[in-house]
Amino acid sequence: MEVGKLLEEQLSRRGLLKGAGSLAGAAGIAALATGGLGIFSSAEAKGGPTEKWPWPYVKLDPATTAEIAYEEWYRVFCGAAVINSIFSQLQEKVGEPYRSFPVDAFKFLEGGMSAWGTVCGSNAGANVVTNVIIGPSLKGASEDGMLMGSEMMQWYSDAQMPVYTPKKPRVTAEIPKTTANSPLCHVSVGKWMKASGKPLGSAERKDRCARVTASVAYHTVELLNDWKDGQYKTRGALPAKSFNIPAQSNCMDCHGSNIPTPPLAKK
Amino acid sequence: MEVGKLLEEQLSRRGLLKGAGSLAGAAGIAALATGGLGIFSSAEAKGGPTEKWPWPYVKLDPATTAEIAYEEWYRVFCGAAVINSIFSQLQEKVGEPYRSFPVDAFKFLEGGMSAWGTVCGSNAGANVVTNVIIGPSLKGASEDGMLMGSEMMQWYSDAQMPVYTPKKPRVTAEIPKTTANSPLCHVSVGKWMKASGKPLGSAERKDRCARVTASVAYHTVELLNDWKDGQYKTRGALPAKSFNIPAQSNCMDCHGSNIPTPPLAKK
Repeated sequence: MEVGKLLEEQLSRRGLLKGAGSLAGAAGIAALATGGLGIFSSAEAKGGPTEKWPWPYVKLDPATTAEIAYEEWYRVFCGAAVINSIFSQLQEKVGEPYRSFPVDAFKFLEGGMSAWGTVCGSNAGANVVTNVIIGPSLKGASEDGMLMGSEMMQWYSDAQMPVYTPKKPRVTAEIPKTTANSPLCHVSVGKWMKASGKPLGSAERKDRCARVTASVAYHTVELLNDWKDGQYKTRGALPAKSFNIPAQSNCMDCHGSNIPTPPLAKK
Repeated sequence: MEVGKLLEEQLSRRGLLKGAGSLAGAAGIAALATGGLGIFSSAEAKGGPTEKWPWPYVKLDPATTAEIAYEEWYRVFCGAAVINSIFSQLQEKVGEPYRSFPVDAFKFLEGGMSAWGTVCGSNAGANVVTNVIIGPSLKGASEDGMLMGSEMMQWYSDAQMPVYTPKKPRVTAEIPKTTANSPLCHVSVGKWMKASGKPLGSAERKDRCARVTASVAYHTVELLNDWKDGQYKTRGALPAKSFNIPAQSNCMDCHGSNIPTPPLAKK
């Protein structure tokens, strides 16, 4: 995991290392170079019957998964649709413990969690999937579940969304593509609504979010298939280690040029 | 559910109805008064073996739950700690389907999801709990799970955090209290770090987040106990219906006085 290199690239690309955020950014890089702040310590599992990881996984077809996710959006919206697009297939092909996972309960991830516009439900759903399958980063365990979820959020932030076009779209009008530069529902949907001029209740907005959901399901399966083949090398990072606060990397989107410097540990 | 009244109060309290956001706010209230935009349509359950709701619940002691959550934070951090503070007791008192729920997999909720600073993990954990127990708002089903999760996010946003003081705190120094005015980790932790001057890696910041986790677990159980008694009347709302975009109600925190008006449906 080349966290330092990846984050340095991201920071540089967004102008943070050259701009107003350089102090926080540079301090973050420095902290990372010395092994991070160690804010996320190891933890030990308690070990319920389904808490043995990784869960058995068989490789899935990304396009088939995306099509299921697209249709599921119209039943349970983004978060539960991503989870069910993958778990419904594994319930058939593998069985337990997938059959006992209450997927539909995650319908609340819609609209960035109960319509609050926080993390996009498709990102939250992808994180549920990667962490439930690969497992949590408990003491001595792989961090790949969390890092793959983080990688999905970065991919989502950078992508021209929606990436995936369903085989039989419910809306045939052209759906504009926008880049959120953020994993948040409010930012992602807001930028798309601004570009398209379409309201939240429009058929186009709904189909856009169904396609985003399909796009996330598709790429999640691509990464899981790589992992199953032993070929997964994460591009995910834990941003708190670099920013000295849990954070997205689009600081200026909210802070403008007045990015605060978090209190730092004394040397 | 007095969504309109509650949101009107919130909007008024934050000055949105009088300020730059009045157009979006007023339009939202108007849309709500006519029954909302109907963006969240009904959905039908598929019905796996654990997808029968509500899950059996017995009333729990809020303080006992908070103490478990506080200790669990030091093992699996905020999100999984809230879930496990409640589910570990129900695994003992009720058994299945709680025993088959892979709680530890939700460790990734830490730091606002993989340290990205999105929704605070304790809020996400509370939403997982209320929705897994009460069930999703599928066709013909109660919306109380999602609305209780939403109520928790509003309560969290408004609270002087941390509310709960553990019986045997690991850190005995005074922990400042701050109001996040947001359900997001980045905002909540950032405002606390600014007020306290303590860095992310400090013992004080860690204990503050453990106490926030305990506070959220405590209040979640209070609401669930009311619900078990048939006394739950939600104070939660689905903000997208009022704002015409999934959103928090602290618009000015990011937008300043330049709050965009989302595209609206033609009358």
